[in-house]
Amino acid sequence: MFVLGIDPGVSRCGYGAVASAGAGLRVVAAGVITTPPADPLPDRLASLLAELRALIDEHRPDAVAVERVFFQTNARTAMSVGQASGLALAAAAQAGCQVAQYTSNEVKMAVAGYGNATKRQIQQMVQAQLGLPELPEPPDVADALALAMCHLSVGPRQARMQEAAG
Amino acid sequence: MFVLGIDPGVSRCGYGAVASAGAGLRVVAAGVITTPPADPLPDRLASLLAELRALIDEHRPDAVAVERVFFQTNARTAMSVGQASGLALAAAAQAGCQVAQYTSNEVKMAVAGYGNATKRQIQQMVQAQLGLPELPEPPDVADALALAMCHLSVGPRQARMQEAAG
Repeated sequence: MFVLGIDPGVSRCGYGAVASAGAGLRVVAAGVITTPPADPLPDRLASLLAELRALIDEHRPDAVAVERVFFQTNARTAMSVGQASGLALAAAAQAGCQVAQYTSNEVKMAVAGYGNATKRQIQQMVQAQLGLPELPEPPDVADALALAMCHLSVGPRQARMQEAAG
Repeated sequence: MFVLGIDPGVSRCGYGAVASAGAGLRVVAAGVITTPPADPLPDRLASLLAELRALIDEHRPDAVAVERVFFQTNARTAMSVGQASGLALAAAAQAGCQVAQYTSNEVKMAVAGYGNATKRQIQQMVQAQLGLPELPEPPDVADALALAMCHLSVGPRQARMQEAAG
C-alpha cells in the first residue's frame, strides 16, 4: 500500500509519501509546498491546489491521509489551516484516492506510542522507523510522513475491524 | 461589470451573480449548492469544488466576491466554512477572476447602510435594490447577492481610491 500524508497549511504544507514494502516502510517522496505570504490569498490557494493535484497525479497514492484540524489555536492560523485542508481533501477525493483524516494525537499515538510526543520525538521516531540517514526536516515533513505511517498502521486494522463487524 | 457573490458553506453554499446594467443592477443567476451531510467530507468538498468551477466557467464573472469568515462561532461550523471558502477562493483565482473578500459587516453596511442589519432586512434590501418580485430565499441566496452588490458598489470606489493614491 502506498500512502501520501499531508500536513495542511497555506504558507507551508508538508507532504510525505510512504510505501509498505514487505515488512518494512519506504519513503517515496517528501517535502514542503510553500506559497509566498506577500501574494494575494486567492492566488496562494489556487497555487497550493494546483501543486497538491500535481503531487497526487505524479505519485498516484492508494490513500491520502490529511491531518484533522481543530480550532483551539488562534483564529487567523485556524482559518488558514482550514482552507488548506479543504483543498487537500477535495484534491484527493477528486483523484479517486481513499481519504482519511487523523488528529495530531492519533498520529502521535500510532508513531510514538503516546499522544503527548514532542515535535522532536516525532522526527526521531519517523527517522528510526523509516531508516532515514538524517532527522526529517522541517517538522512539517516529519508530520506528513507520520500521517502516512499512521494510516499504514491504523487504516488496515480499521478496515479489518469493519469487515469483522459487517 | 459582472460579479458572482459566494456565501461559503459545505452543506449549503449560496451564490448570486449580479450585472450592473447602466444605472441599475440585474440578477443573472442565483441559487444554493448543497452537498449531502451523510456523504464523506472529502467527497462533499470535491463535489462543491466541481460545482463552483462549473458555475464560474458557465457565467465567466469579471469578479468573485466571497464572504470573509472569522472564527468566533463554534469550531465545527468554522472549520467547515473555512474549507468551503478555501475552495471558492482557489476556484475563482484559478479561473483568472478578480477575487475580493468582504466581512458580513461590510456587506451589511454596503447594502443596508448599517452593520447590524438582520437576515430579513438584508433579504428586503436585496429584493428592493434588484427589483425582484419576491424575497430572495433562502437567506444564503440573499447573502450571496448582497456580496455581489457590495463589490459592485465598493469595489470600483476602492479601485478609484487606489488609483488616486498611486
